[in-house]
Amino acid sequence: MTQQHINESRVQDMIECIAQFTSTPGKGTTRLTYSAEHRDVRDYLLSKMKEAGLKTREDAVGNIFGRIEGKKPDLPPVLVGSHFDSVPNGGNFDGPAGVVAGLETAFVFHELGIKPERPIEIIAMIEEEGGRFGSGLLGSRLLTGQVKQQELHELKDQNGISVAQAMSDFGLDPSRSGEVVLSAGSLHAFLELHIEQGPILEQNQEDIGIVTEVVSLSQIEVTVTGAAGHAGTTPMNARKDAMVGSAAVIARIPGIVAEVDKAAVGTVGRIVAQPGGANVIPNSVTFSVDIRSPQAENVAEIKDKLRTELKQLSDSGLTFEINEKITIPSTPMAEGIQKQFAKDADASGVKWRWMPSGAGHDAMILSKITQTGLIFVPSRDGISHAPEEWTDYDKLAKGIEVIFRTAKALSE
Amino acid sequence: MTQQHINESRVQDMIECIAQFTSTPGKGTTRLTYSAEHRDVRDYLLSKMKEAGLKTREDAVGNIFGRIEGKKPDLPPVLVGSHFDSVPNGGNFDGPAGVVAGLETAFVFHELGIKPERPIEIIAMIEEEGGRFGSGLLGSRLLTGQVKQQELHELKDQNGISVAQAMSDFGLDPSRSGEVVLSAGSLHAFLELHIEQGPILEQNQEDIGIVTEVVSLSQIEVTVTGAAGHAGTTPMNARKDAMVGSAAVIARIPGIVAEVDKAAVGTVGRIVAQPGGANVIPNSVTFSVDIRSPQAENVAEIKDKLRTELKQLSDSGLTFEINEKITIPSTPMAEGIQKQFAKDADASGVKWRWMPSGAGHDAMILSKITQTGLIFVPSRDGISHAPEEWTDYDKLAKGIEVIFRTAKALSE
Repeated sequence: MTQQHINESRVQDMIECIAQFTSTPGKGTTRLTYSAEHRDVRDYLLSKMKEAGLKTREDAVGNIFGRIEGKKPDLPPVLVGSHFDSVPNGGNFDGPAGVVAGLETAFVFHELGIKPERPIEIIAMIEEEGGRFGSGLLGSRLLTGQVKQQELHELKDQNGISVAQAMSDFGLDPSRSGEVVLSAGSLHAFLELHIEQGPILEQNQEDIGIVTEVVSLSQIEVTVTGAAGHAGTTPMNARKDAMVGSAAVIARIPGIVAEVDKAAVGTVGRIVAQPGGANVIPNSVTFSVDIRSPQAENVAEIKDKLRTELKQLSDSGLTFEINEKITIPSTPMAEGIQKQFAKDADASGVKWRWMPSGAGHDAMILSKITQTGLIFVPSRDGISHAPEEWTDYDKLAKGIEVIFRTAKALSE
Repeated sequence: MTQQHINESRVQDMIECIAQFTSTPGKGTTRLTYSAEHRDVRDYLLSKMKEAGLKTREDAVGNIFGRIEGKKPDLPPVLVGSHFDSVPNGGNFDGPAGVVAGLETAFVFHELGIKPERPIEIIAMIEEEGGRFGSGLLGSRLLTGQVKQQELHELKDQNGISVAQAMSDFGLDPSRSGEVVLSAGSLHAFLELHIEQGPILEQNQEDIGIVTEVVSLSQIEVTVTGAAGHAGTTPMNARKDAMVGSAAVIARIPGIVAEVDKAAVGTVGRIVAQPGGANVIPNSVTFSVDIRSPQAENVAEIKDKLRTELKQLSDSGLTFEINEKITIPSTPMAEGIQKQFAKDADASGVKWRWMPSGAGHDAMILSKITQTGLIFVPSRDGISHAPEEWTDYDKLAKGIEVIFRTAKALSE
């Protein structure tokens, strides 16, 4: 029997406490950045950090840090954590699982009286979901200097309140946001635990996934254009029906994806038909296509095949346009940390697999300035961003055990 | 050379005058019921009716009548006309073409000094398009007693103004709306000329279409339900993607329609995917299907085949629901009038065809209380409900020639 360090009931207690800070009790977690719930969870996290013996600070934008001092305090620290905001009506684990992983790591260090060689810092980041201001990964992008001061005035929530205004209302000074930037040499590593948000670990009855890379992503918007016409008086053979053409292409997407790459995914989440009357043939249909694969070249190939499919619509008198919205290359996680995770997982008797991450995470952003490692814990039924989001606490504890061990190893 | 009675330049002049009464000059005709433009066109129509020697009246809801007295004034009159409202940013012909057909008929009677045996009444009807209150064929439904007093208070425009309120503001008394109802024996016939709103006459280089029936129509709303999931983290084989399933069915609709009935049409004009994020697999997609055929049984068969197609989605873990919105049986036009139209078309050298009407018209509603006849004139490129809507004036004059001759024949 391997020695386990993690206190599962304390982990559960922290997850459940954090879950109480929601503006939609009974309807999932809604904890938007710079809200009353943000303030409440901030206070809670700071008090838990203090309880774990950490030296705390809140940076100029609201990211929360707690430091385990190292024997060599001048060495760049190992950073451990995740984000504490949520989507509207989300779950209790997306974000907090990784924050609690950091906190629990600190508790174990504290209880065992270990003083690491290098400092370890626990971090709880703001606005990863883009739930308030529509701009995802904002906390980690601020930390890595990827957000211009001006953007804080331009990004607005649904009520027209800018990030800068919300910061001021929250008691922060937006003009100081540049101070939060962490330079490339200032960290030794970043470790994040996150829920999988997919079904693979559960289906394979595995405890954790060690992420090899965050997949390459391309989001495009396709507009198919035909001609409007009266639904009753335009014969079928005289139509240029943008809806029928679009539907044929959308129905083909799973086939195209499968032909190129079994590990790739393609999704049409949004669709708008114009003019939109039940008795009018649509002259225009616009739909989103989200394509992801561990291999960027496969994303490109899927897009090429999609384009070929769209070209065939000219037989039906239709034209098309592709608007590239987002393209992100794949982001490998640090090989050394992957190996350390695997070693620690084996040592602690955790059943694990290598896997890509289909979603972007703070670890992807922080990999621009330091070596990063990301591990997944199972999501029941693959569900996330919903009140039903769930990870068994024993599985979460196993994931945190690996985070603790790797943090310890990296800080030695 | 057959004798032609219609004054094409007067027809053109009337169409162009009516077109000026728009709230969107330069952007098509926008003439909503009980608007300032309604008032202007009403005054114009009443003055033209008087110029043509007609005895005029406006009924309690705003339908405008002009009467050519018959030698036997007690006989039920032949009614000739159409509607004078428009869709927002519509064209100059949808509605006015038929109103002008009535007016020009009256001018010819007046100029030739013909006194018919039975009276002829010219009618210009309100709110056929539902452009203001969203309820189509309102004028003719009021005339045939199909609208309850209460509905005038319930039906509202985009600003929340009810029909009743708008009537009061316009100077009409909504409590008197019941007075407009025409009883079953009160008319001898109704004749309407309308633009085709489709490409068939133009493609076949024909002058008019004699409508055999208004097609059977069914509008349904289909909801396909699957499971939401993260677009990046849910493998393709673990998805219940409501969008992909819906697209497969929508793409099949033209094939299903063609298998059942070459004269039928099927249209998906509206589609909504939920939750609607570009990075979320839709758990629900709702789309409209508008199905029309001259044969009601073919509409039913197309619906059955669509249902069979939807049932196959269970292989992908999807369920579906069909919500019946509107079902209208086909409405035959009076055979005697069809034959008279054909005889008069032949006699005046007009090239014509029998054809069904894919769209509903006031003639469809008035057929509940009297024998009705409907003829179509060509629509350039099949376009209607747009500023580009166009009918060559010589073709319009040919259509009116037939209306005049048939009105004369029916009144003898």
